[in-house]
Amino acid sequence: MGIAERAWAEKALFLDNYQLTMAQLYFRHGIHESTAQFEHFTRGYPDYGNHQAGYCVAAGLEWLLDWMDEAAISDADIDALRSQRTATGGQLFDDDFLAWLRANGSFESLSLRAVPEGRVVHPNAPLTIVRGPLAIAQLLETSLLNHLNFQTLIATKASRLVEAARGRPVLEFGLRRSPEHAASAATRAALIGGADFSSNTGISYVLGVPPKGTHAHSLVQVFMALGEGEIGAFRAYAGQYPDDCLLLVDTIDTLRSGIPNAITVFDELRAAGHKPVGVRLDSGDLAYLAIQSALQLDEAGYDDTSIVLSSGLDELSIFQILAQIDQEAPRYGLSPSQLINRLSFGVGSKLTASDGHPYLDGVYKMVAIESEGAWRPAIKLSESPAKSQNPGDKDLVRVYDDRGRATADLLTVAGEVLSDSLITLQHPIEHGVRRRLPRERVSAIEPLLDTVYTDGRRVGDEPTLADIRERRDDDIDKLDPGVRRLVNPHTYHVSLTPELWDLKQRLITEARGS
Amino acid sequence: MGIAERAWAEKALFLDNYQLTMAQLYFRHGIHESTAQFEHFTRGYPDYGNHQAGYCVAAGLEWLLDWMDEAAISDADIDALRSQRTATGGQLFDDDFLAWLRANGSFESLSLRAVPEGRVVHPNAPLTIVRGPLAIAQLLETSLLNHLNFQTLIATKASRLVEAARGRPVLEFGLRRSPEHAASAATRAALIGGADFSSNTGISYVLGVPPKGTHAHSLVQVFMALGEGEIGAFRAYAGQYPDDCLLLVDTIDTLRSGIPNAITVFDELRAAGHKPVGVRLDSGDLAYLAIQSALQLDEAGYDDTSIVLSSGLDELSIFQILAQIDQEAPRYGLSPSQLINRLSFGVGSKLTASDGHPYLDGVYKMVAIESEGAWRPAIKLSESPAKSQNPGDKDLVRVYDDRGRATADLLTVAGEVLSDSLITLQHPIEHGVRRRLPRERVSAIEPLLDTVYTDGRRVGDEPTLADIRERRDDDIDKLDPGVRRLVNPHTYHVSLTPELWDLKQRLITEARGS
Repeated sequence: MGIAERAWAEKALFLDNYQLTMAQLYFRHGIHESTAQFEHFTRGYPDYGNHQAGYCVAAGLEWLLDWMDEAAISDADIDALRSQRTATGGQLFDDDFLAWLRANGSFESLSLRAVPEGRVVHPNAPLTIVRGPLAIAQLLETSLLNHLNFQTLIATKASRLVEAARGRPVLEFGLRRSPEHAASAATRAALIGGADFSSNTGISYVLGVPPKGTHAHSLVQVFMALGEGEIGAFRAYAGQYPDDCLLLVDTIDTLRSGIPNAITVFDELRAAGHKPVGVRLDSGDLAYLAIQSALQLDEAGYDDTSIVLSSGLDELSIFQILAQIDQEAPRYGLSPSQLINRLSFGVGSKLTASDGHPYLDGVYKMVAIESEGAWRPAIKLSESPAKSQNPGDKDLVRVYDDRGRATADLLTVAGEVLSDSLITLQHPIEHGVRRRLPRERVSAIEPLLDTVYTDGRRVGDEPTLADIRERRDDDIDKLDPGVRRLVNPHTYHVSLTPELWDLKQRLITEARGS
Repeated sequence: MGIAERAWAEKALFLDNYQLTMAQLYFRHGIHESTAQFEHFTRGYPDYGNHQAGYCVAAGLEWLLDWMDEAAISDADIDALRSQRTATGGQLFDDDFLAWLRANGSFESLSLRAVPEGRVVHPNAPLTIVRGPLAIAQLLETSLLNHLNFQTLIATKASRLVEAARGRPVLEFGLRRSPEHAASAATRAALIGGADFSSNTGISYVLGVPPKGTHAHSLVQVFMALGEGEIGAFRAYAGQYPDDCLLLVDTIDTLRSGIPNAITVFDELRAAGHKPVGVRLDSGDLAYLAIQSALQLDEAGYDDTSIVLSSGLDELSIFQILAQIDQEAPRYGLSPSQLINRLSFGVGSKLTASDGHPYLDGVYKMVAIESEGAWRPAIKLSESPAKSQNPGDKDLVRVYDDRGRATADLLTVAGEVLSDSLITLQHPIEHGVRRRLPRERVSAIEPLLDTVYTDGRRVGDEPTLADIRERRDDDIDKLDPGVRRLVNPHTYHVSLTPELWDLKQRLITEARGS
């Protein structure tokens, strides 16, 4: 097939075919350039089988905007579309529509507002709001979801791993089992979610975060096959990387071969004036082996070398390992916190494939459309009221309590002015379930949506990865610890103002009546 | 960041950093060009929580070869590598190594043997065998795994969906929640695994399979907002696509609004000389709604329109829907098989993210290395005997029984000649557990590995997608139905010849001794 053809397929035609059949229909009815507004939101938190997330971390926006910049419809796209056939063999896309699409098939006519990357976000509140010509806003749907759903999913998983790791470094090692070339996005999202480094080399350079990596079991195998054994491999590694010497110690037997050989080589390094970095444990009972390795290393005078743990880790296994160390280390006369302070975690497939919940159910729904000069809020009814979307043009703010903690996200009708005395938080589904917050108990009300794209260009400075990571850290600090909990977190409130609630009820009634 | 930088990052530096640190070490020790052999194999079948696969479908090879063709180390790569620092601030990769890498950093020096795409494969038998200079074979590891693990994972999931669908069409609709740009690979793998069509437009054109798609709920919403209602949307759709009219009927109420409106529009189409295609149901109790929709359509004279089901489907939900139709349709006077014969299935995220098991644990292990002119089989010991790899240069054959069914995959020492009278299948782990097959009960012994790449170029014709799909169909036909079962499948045998078993035991003994 060739890389070039694939690159072509991932530009403007990286969409579900029905976006095009609908666009043509809108064109035919003369409503393709009517202004419409769509919202992207998720319906729920990732639920990893036995432990649901209590928050998400927004990610993917900058790469979506990169994609939009280069995804204008080209002549080659038009040729491909012209070849598509109806059931009776005719041309599916007519020439007049294709001519319009060739001239107008870029995203320059759209405006986007979005919650910036790195921010903590919650279901049923817009992450992105798209406004522009109906057909063009519709054409963006699939790719917007594709880019934002995946990175938000992985940034969320990473954030949980980071929380489980109690501030110790988290390294993303997933490339070999990542979802193919989404690995690049996974690495970026992992870093946004709080991972410290990645082994994924090229994209780490692009992102300005140096890649990390030491050696694999195969290095030890090679030296064993050459008759030089594990110690030969370790010596070779120390010789090449005397100041970066981190040794994988489980190829033969961690405690009886790997650690003793590592200590021998560390002694040689130290004698030559170098400081050994540490060891990596990649199999077995990691908490037990970390304790036993630490005891041997301490005894040999290496109480500050790091111990990297890897092998199928996820947030629950890290949580379990640290809990086990808390319980067992004292039995061996080790301080749990001292041991934990020398750990790092290498996390692979379970991060970059989001094991347990491998896709985010983000959706993109029309909330308003212009008709005969009037702007009409739109609703989609659903058998389940939870699935009926919040209609119309809206704003989204975060309400902080008097401790400075985020206490709710609040959806308002666009431009709505909140009361000076009382903030009313209406439950999004349950009639009459309202929480009232006197303004003196509210320390801040923060708008969450920024305009990020308008008139064919980005608005504002492109944030660096460091900026984005800082946003996440700030938002996490402002969450209630109960919301951050790995298992059985508190439910964060996403509420409506009474004005928005009333609009929604009115539209539901009208739609039911019609 | 920009698309160009990402494209760069996904070429030669699309690897784990330790491949490079190891390559430099081998270079320093003068063994970087020693011939080595690596094998790619999986350790188990995907296990989707409650139902493990009984076979896998190989996929991804052609795209790996495409990648290899363009992944030679460039000046830009060298510049990036030169910038990487040691802990003490020095250059991590030395200039002499970088000069060698610039001159030799392509895959032209490797040879690959592989099981062709589309073939049924099993764990612990090589899917790919790589031979060549140690450092170069090591550099290929991450990307080979990345490309082959993912497509094999998705092709396997697709094959299960196709089995569950009892021969009815399966449409891949996953793009919006696929793992970002791995969506392209997911679409290809889904088609290899037996899916019929995809909604993913660009890559469908590239693959020569026309994309499919009709309309979304938003089309109905638009016409509702314009005051024309669901019927207005259906009429508009029928007007634009009179011979491809497939209507999404669940925006308001499937049985009370969607189907009756669809029938009205179908009547109008029929009066104008067109043949309506059918309806799509995207929410609710799909088996029940399919039955009720069929009753209404039959009554109106549309007993051959298709009914497309979608909404979070996977192989078990399809299995359940068809079982429910088998049980319930007769109560309404409907023939289950007639109803099932008009169904199609739209499958999204649960296919393209392989819900339940979102990564394949394929590994890449060194099995032999040249040392002082001699070729030495290599082994990696493991605490679990199942994880000790099968050493040395090998062949892989499939043994068919007298009914023409695949009965076992057999690993042999390379070049080993099998007995004319008796095939002995040694259990890969359990000493003395052997199955003996008289040759007269063996209808065929088929080598599975083809040479696909040597001297910097591909060998043999590039197979078309149709060829690959045909291979899958053939292999599936030759599987025992018990192995194909969705839940609790029979275990397929992957065995060793006694000669290979003896070699493995000798190497384990030697390694333990050393």
